[in-house]
Parts: sequence; structure tokens; C-alpha cells
Amino acid sequence: MVTFRNAMATDLCEIVQMLADDVLGQERERYENPLPDSYFDAFESIDADRNNELIVACLDGQIVGVQQITFTPYLTHQGGWRATIEGVRTAASERGKGIGSKLIQYAIDRAKARGCHIIQLTTDKKREDSLRFYERLGFTATHEGLKMKL
Amino acid sequence: MVTFRNAMATDLCEIVQMLADDVLGQERERYENPLPDSYFDAFESIDADRNNELIVACLDGQIVGVQQITFTPYLTHQGGWRATIEGVRTAASERGKGIGSKLIQYAIDRAKARGCHIIQLTTDKKREDSLRFYERLGFTATHEGLKMKL
Repeated sequence: MVTFRNAMATDLCEIVQMLADDVLGQERERYENPLPDSYFDAFESIDADRNNELIVACLDGQIVGVQQITFTPYLTHQGGWRATIEGVRTAASERGKGIGSKLIQYAIDRAKARGCHIIQLTTDKKREDSLRFYERLGFTATHEGLKMKL
Repeated sequence: MVTFRNAMATDLCEIVQMLADDVLGQERERYENPLPDSYFDAFESIDADRNNELIVACLDGQIVGVQQITFTPYLTHQGGWRATIEGVRTAASERGKGIGSKLIQYAIDRAKARGCHIIQLTTDKKREDSLRFYERLGFTATHEGLKMKL
């Protein structure tokens, strides 16, 4: 059975391995031993912030998935909170087992528990399967997702 | 000259009036006297969070624009921070004066000051002019923006 918990610093190696083992991630991550300090710094900032949760999915004691959920208070929609999902990955060896869907369902449950009225994410248009995956789960691609590198 | 500052609780009436005076906002905001408590609650949560900034643009002592900037630490991209812009509005009477561009430039400057490597936003596909506006400013619509109401 897949279980979920907040990530710990000792999970970072396995998490970054998953982030790097990805068609887009392999170009932008650095899965090295030792891991670059920037990952530990980011983990500390996430872990210290009650509006950010880094979640791992575990199966038989192994980490098989990861995602980050951010809770944000907004003035729009009459002052409603939103949950944003980012960095969703499933271990390559475990794909096709429904772990991704369970991760998103977990995020939806957390968003409801935190009183959010919307849950949202952006997915790279190059990830052709992702859009269909999220649409099957009930998301609607109503928005353009714009980025600028600084 | 347009100036920028963090919003105060006493600005909320003018801000919500701008949010409601919008083709999409008019369906989902409640600009009433007194303002619904939910706006004040959201303002308090934003104001108390160092990773959220509600910014107003002022011209001749009047509030003429608003936006919210959220700074988020992520593990992806080697543990990089991102800035997300949301709820950008310019007062109806002041449109066409470049205030929107200045708001976004202010957000870019804040994002750089906070060490973010990406600045991002989503815009409703129904807002046909918005996509071009953001593309002119240097954003690229590389992502689909997916939402689910809870």
C-alpha cells in the first residue's frame, strides 16, 4: 500500500534522483554525491514554512514518488486560499501503478483540509501525457502558464 | 510618477473595487460596504507571511493598481526560489498608461532581489489581451495552467 508523509532531509538523495531521472529534469538537476548544498538549503526553507509541504509517497519502505504542495492566501475570489502542486514525480521503476494519481489525490485532500477553494498546477507543454493525466483527474486547462527566466 | 508600496488594511476597499471591476472579477468578488470579512482575513494572512507581498501602485495619492507576489522555495531546478504573480489589476480609469507594465517590472525587480531564478504567472485563456501583454514583457507560454475547483 502506498503511504504518504512529509519528506525529511535524509530523503533528499532519493528525491533528487527521481527529479533528475526525467526527460526535462535530467537537463536541470544535479544528482551527485554529495548532493549540491542548494538542495539542502531549499529543503530547509520548505520545511520551515507551514505553507509549503514536501510530500513523499512510500511503498514497501522505499520512496516511490514526490510532490510539493504550496498553500497561498489570495485576496482574489473573496480572499480564498489556493493549493499549488509542483515537482510531481514517480520513480521510473514504479510507473503505471497509479502512484501519480494517488499523489494528486493526497494533494487534493490536503488542499481541502487547509480550506483551499482551488487546487492548481502548471505542466510543461512538452509533457504531452501530463495534460491528459491531469484532465482525467478533473483538472481543466483554463489558463496559459507563462514563465520568464531571471 | 507611479510609486509602489506594500498594501495596508486601509487600502482594501480600493483594492477590492479594482478586483471586482473586471470582466471575470465581477462574477466572483463582493465589493460591498462593509467589505466581507474574508478579504480582511486573507489580507492578514498575506501580510503576516514574509513570502507573500501585496503591492499597490499609487499615482497622485490614489491607488491605481494591485498585484500579489509569492516567493516559493522549490527543490526542482537545484533548489531554486520562484516568484509567482497573481491578481494583477489596473484601475479602469487608468488603463493604457503603462501602469500594468510597471507593476510587472516591479515584480521582476522584487523577484531578482529575493534571488528567484524564475518569475511566473497564469492567465485565463479568456483574457485574450493578457497573453500578448505578458509575451511583450518577455514571458513565454511554455506551460498549461490547470485548475480544479474544490
